[in-house]
Amino acid sequence: MTGTAVDTPPFYCPIESAVHPEAEEAERRALAWFERSGLCRDGTDLARIAGSRSADFYARFAPDADPDRLWLAALWVYWGFVFDDARCDEGPFAADPAAFAPMAFSVQRALEVPGRLSCADPYAAALHEIGELFRAAAGPVQNRRFEHAHRAWLTGVQWQIGNRAAGRMPDLDEYLTMRLHSAGGEPTYAMLEIANGLDVPDREMDSPAVRALTEMAILVAALDNDRHSHTRETTRHQTEQNIVNVLMTHHRHSLRQAVDEAIALRDAVLERFLALRDQVTPRAGSALRHYLTDLGHGIRGNIEWGLSVPRYLAPDGITPAAPARIPAQTAGGHWTDTPRPGRQDPRRLPSLAWWWSDLVF
Amino acid sequence: MTGTAVDTPPFYCPIESAVHPEAEEAERRALAWFERSGLCRDGTDLARIAGSRSADFYARFAPDADPDRLWLAALWVYWGFVFDDARCDEGPFAADPAAFAPMAFSVQRALEVPGRLSCADPYAAALHEIGELFRAAAGPVQNRRFEHAHRAWLTGVQWQIGNRAAGRMPDLDEYLTMRLHSAGGEPTYAMLEIANGLDVPDREMDSPAVRALTEMAILVAALDNDRHSHTRETTRHQTEQNIVNVLMTHHRHSLRQAVDEAIALRDAVLERFLALRDQVTPRAGSALRHYLTDLGHGIRGNIEWGLSVPRYLAPDGITPAAPARIPAQTAGGHWTDTPRPGRQDPRRLPSLAWWWSDLVF
Repeated sequence: MTGTAVDTPPFYCPIESAVHPEAEEAERRALAWFERSGLCRDGTDLARIAGSRSADFYARFAPDADPDRLWLAALWVYWGFVFDDARCDEGPFAADPAAFAPMAFSVQRALEVPGRLSCADPYAAALHEIGELFRAAAGPVQNRRFEHAHRAWLTGVQWQIGNRAAGRMPDLDEYLTMRLHSAGGEPTYAMLEIANGLDVPDREMDSPAVRALTEMAILVAALDNDRHSHTRETTRHQTEQNIVNVLMTHHRHSLRQAVDEAIALRDAVLERFLALRDQVTPRAGSALRHYLTDLGHGIRGNIEWGLSVPRYLAPDGITPAAPARIPAQTAGGHWTDTPRPGRQDPRRLPSLAWWWSDLVF
Repeated sequence: MTGTAVDTPPFYCPIESAVHPEAEEAERRALAWFERSGLCRDGTDLARIAGSRSADFYARFAPDADPDRLWLAALWVYWGFVFDDARCDEGPFAADPAAFAPMAFSVQRALEVPGRLSCADPYAAALHEIGELFRAAAGPVQNRRFEHAHRAWLTGVQWQIGNRAAGRMPDLDEYLTMRLHSAGGEPTYAMLEIANGLDVPDREMDSPAVRALTEMAILVAALDNDRHSHTRETTRHQTEQNIVNVLMTHHRHSLRQAVDEAIALRDAVLERFLALRDQVTPRAGSALRHYLTDLGHGIRGNIEWGLSVPRYLAPDGITPAAPARIPAQTAGGHWTDTPRPGRQDPRRLPSLAWWWSDLVF
């Protein structure tokens, strides 16, 4: 575990840390739900689900959430991690794009169909039940946003699986566009409204500025996950798609250079996120302000969670001990106050350049 | 051409016919745009684009559209048909799900990125320019709805390509779910707001009742397209996914039975559409009322267009003659006043059953 800490360069993240005070209660409620679900055959299954520490994860995204809704968002995160492991990054679908599409988009339909639904696939059945809980807790607008985000996530995974099947390493612009979706950040952030009981007006939520802020928060978190998982993944798949391998393949960088350039790119996106958020916030309504604040909490919280979660630290992704969260302040050595300069100007990446334009709000 | 008319059983469609009076002007403007686009190398390309008669098609969906926006919606329909032929149903991606995903979701990104964007792929470049025109003509909420619908369409095509690659004929419930997306009805109907200059409030648009009405209109049109194209497709691909082949494969129906059952199922969905629309309309705001009226115009117009378009009638999909629209009234022999009874109860199909429940509005 100390090895990983040394291998992971410090994070630039001038955002205050915050954790919901009832994170443990959310974990308890979510795991009790999974224990009764079709995804748990035995204690090993439950330990694997618990190993993602998703309640702690989301308690950092939404530190002021309604306690009766926080556990619902955690439910989906737990589900997402086990689905990811069983059906996306590993397992029989990981390099089979022809089989992934019918499976994944049937699962998506199970989320979207309201009311009673019988599903043969236990992942679809569990997701449908989560969708029912979401529909009971939040309005149709918030649920549609989550559904759209969820479908977009699956398109990113489909893309990644297609590249994997073809042995294709995407170039940087393609990788970042794919990663915006494949990382699962969209549904994760789309749950902020559900967990907090927010209703951001559509004219605000769909404005180019708020779309750009959401995408930037997603990409920063996704690249931070690349940093967390790089050590774990490079020991297993040298050809796996991540930003370090993209830069080594297409930019002829050494491993060290690639890691440095990846950090610099991510830091530049975070700088732009913070600057644009400062411009938008004074004119935002109260629900949007809360949403924008939590986009930042998610960036910070995702790092803190990644520094402590068995998913990245334990070889089997399961922690043998009882739940034991690492308070944010113990992670002090992992931070830096200075963004890293880089040679790659993100404003020259076609798919991202618009984030730096004069965005309407 | 008369052969096709005999082979296509009459349509039950108690919806008034309507065509925008400036359909020809919309066609002229749209084709002039394509002539300058990167998708036209020569007159054959232009004739192929023109062959879908997309301006006539959309003039029937939105007969009261703002004339300065009608041609924009037609633009996308022309684009969608050539993309479909070159990249979805035929061409090198048609059975290559690993290659389709990076191509299709890069094209989607080209639609979504605002501002100047350089695209090597001419389909992406043309779609980006269409997106720019849409952003200039309509607000961010309408554009986001179109983008979500567009991504969902591509997931349906991805699913279809996955099944094709695996030689898999989906069962009826899976086929109908896939077809809801793969037929392209979502982006087509999502343009109703853009073409008409409407702004349907999100609480109405995302309500379960309006979602169900939109899905039902999509499915009726999609199954009508199956009926139009069945003759054309069965001469080429006996194993192609369409409702007739699904029913023959999984329900042991003869060709005649399968055609009859497919029509009965489609008629039952249209009956439910009309009944639910009658319930919702009195409580709908004016923008939603217009949208719901045009959902019906789309069902009717799609049939009328299908009965006259070279796409379905000419072997090469190109008409040699100058644009010559068949007025709706000449198609009188193609209609019936009576829905067809069937053995298949659509309320027993898991993914669709919720359309018959007591839907919130």
